[in-house]
Amino acid sequence: MMKTTKKRAVPLHEDPIRHIVWKGDRLDVIDQRLLPRRVRYVSCRTAKEVAKATTDMVLRGAPLIGCAAAFGMALAARSGRLKDVLSAEPLLRRARPTAVNLMHALDLMLAVAESGPKETLARRMADAAEKYCRDDIAYNARMAELGAALLKPGSRVITHCNAGALATAGIGTAVGMIRAGYLAGKVAHVYPCETRPYLQGSRLTLWELMQAGIPATLITDNMAAHLMKTVKIDAVIVGSDRIAANADVCNKIGTYGLAILAKHHAVPFYVVAPSTTVDFSTASGDLIPIEERSAREVVEVFGVPIAPKGAKARHFAFDVTPHELVTAIVTEKGVVSPADGQTLRKVVESEC
Amino acid sequence: MMKTTKKRAVPLHEDPIRHIVWKGDRLDVIDQRLLPRRVRYVSCRTAKEVAKATTDMVLRGAPLIGCAAAFGMALAARSGRLKDVLSAEPLLRRARPTAVNLMHALDLMLAVAESGPKETLARRMADAAEKYCRDDIAYNARMAELGAALLKPGSRVITHCNAGALATAGIGTAVGMIRAGYLAGKVAHVYPCETRPYLQGSRLTLWELMQAGIPATLITDNMAAHLMKTVKIDAVIVGSDRIAANADVCNKIGTYGLAILAKHHAVPFYVVAPSTTVDFSTASGDLIPIEERSAREVVEVFGVPIAPKGAKARHFAFDVTPHELVTAIVTEKGVVSPADGQTLRKVVESEC
Repeated sequence: MMKTTKKRAVPLHEDPIRHIVWKGDRLDVIDQRLLPRRVRYVSCRTAKEVAKATTDMVLRGAPLIGCAAAFGMALAARSGRLKDVLSAEPLLRRARPTAVNLMHALDLMLAVAESGPKETLARRMADAAEKYCRDDIAYNARMAELGAALLKPGSRVITHCNAGALATAGIGTAVGMIRAGYLAGKVAHVYPCETRPYLQGSRLTLWELMQAGIPATLITDNMAAHLMKTVKIDAVIVGSDRIAANADVCNKIGTYGLAILAKHHAVPFYVVAPSTTVDFSTASGDLIPIEERSAREVVEVFGVPIAPKGAKARHFAFDVTPHELVTAIVTEKGVVSPADGQTLRKVVESEC
Repeated sequence: MMKTTKKRAVPLHEDPIRHIVWKGDRLDVIDQRLLPRRVRYVSCRTAKEVAKATTDMVLRGAPLIGCAAAFGMALAARSGRLKDVLSAEPLLRRARPTAVNLMHALDLMLAVAESGPKETLARRMADAAEKYCRDDIAYNARMAELGAALLKPGSRVITHCNAGALATAGIGTAVGMIRAGYLAGKVAHVYPCETRPYLQGSRLTLWELMQAGIPATLITDNMAAHLMKTVKIDAVIVGSDRIAANADVCNKIGTYGLAILAKHHAVPFYVVAPSTTVDFSTASGDLIPIEERSAREVVEVFGVPIAPKGAKARHFAFDVTPHELVTAIVTEKGVVSPADGQTLRKVVESEC
């Protein structure tokens, strides 16, 4: 037998991470704030608890926020009363401001709630939430396939934040494309940026990649330019929290800078996101409000102060990448390239 | 009396930070690894101890590394034996690989050692080391004056790493220019990048700016592009560890990326460094070896793990910014603009 020290890559259909589990009367989610140091589940029995888990970042990632909200609505419907669903909806809608998947999931669930008699309300809503998640899983798989086809063999790729399994119900958006790419020989090595201040890259993406048996080396966010120049990078692959009608991409803080660096080094810049991330009601990226989170997350790391007492800090959680810097947007309905408003509408509104 | 909540800016000649203190028989330096949480001094009584403090990052910053090495040579000379000086020199030279100020200081001290009788060796060397530091202080003041003149009134500036008092014997290079600029109404607000992995920006530069009464707000490294686009930034000001003959600039990891972002947003990019930072023996930046430090500094913050067990990481400590991306290099001999090899040589070789 051949000896190998290389870890076997995990096939796409075998996913070791069960981070969102529907139990009929509750939703169990992994507390992502504690990863990778501890795997602990939080149980949500009401829509309010789902909203709180979302606001507190127990769960994060735009597609996953949408899935959790759908289950939140299903929990509210368990009473069989439409008014409970209607009062749960604004709670969930306010939980996080950026991910448009959240708004999309709630609109869909509201329509389901109002589409039949109260006797079947609970059942209809639970079925719809489960279908919403199954769809997300299927979208992930399709995007992974379409995205991997864009890469050249043996690519070294940079990714940012966590657009992986933990951000979705399936294998992830950007990380799904990377995993499919690795299995197809398209991806040779991954450099996840640590993604300060919340460290989604070092805590979540690197953990997922290691679990999936993909060769990965962590870098700090400020090393990306040096890598593009010296190690040579063949692609940058990220997810998105909201895509405007003109194809501008809102994503984790640092994405815009990476896109500029990629352009400077002629490195293709790919965004992977389901069509539910597209917000045609927002004309361009500069109209997307940028969520600011606590400055404490900048001046402390896991509770350890890294700045002087009394330090002021800003914590912009997202930024906007103008579509001119994006090589292609990979959706489950097809690849949007060039990344402009016209092509985006054509792909997203197509039947597939 | 008018009430004000604004902290008074500290004049340039009043410096509250005594981080390198020559005692004749020893050199006391603040342990910068513990800042800003604790102010503790490390006493070096031998050249070997100075070399170890340099390697271990008790002290850092290219000009300061040069000053400390000069005192290290003076300590070796206390025996009155030239051979002790000659054997101390390679120890100090190997302490850190990038800062060419170190090589410059050692060359100068060797020449002093060999220029007179053994009876006066100890005295000559102590005097030369003290003069080297006084010169550094004077260079800082001159660069601050020349640099501040380049800024437009009310500028919002980004700086990276620590090119402040703690990196020199005086008021600092980049931070000196910022402080002089603030006192002249040229600087309105400073955004230090935290500078992962070693956090010189959040730990050292922000601390210095707060001590000096300069309004400053900490950002993570990956927020710079978003700030340039939204808050608007008027200048990026950094130091350097080595400048090649063609004016390429080696500095803390992340500098190269910042320079690309500055160019993309048409923001002037200034490098502030004494002429002792220029290495005419290195033709271009890509010939400067890039120091890699422990990956532990990437996967841990103050000993707290931020990545999964067994995580791989790279820790490039520096990068190289091609001179085309530099608006001007401010030296004590004058401003190098355009930043090219010919102008650099003309300014640095001028008598002033």
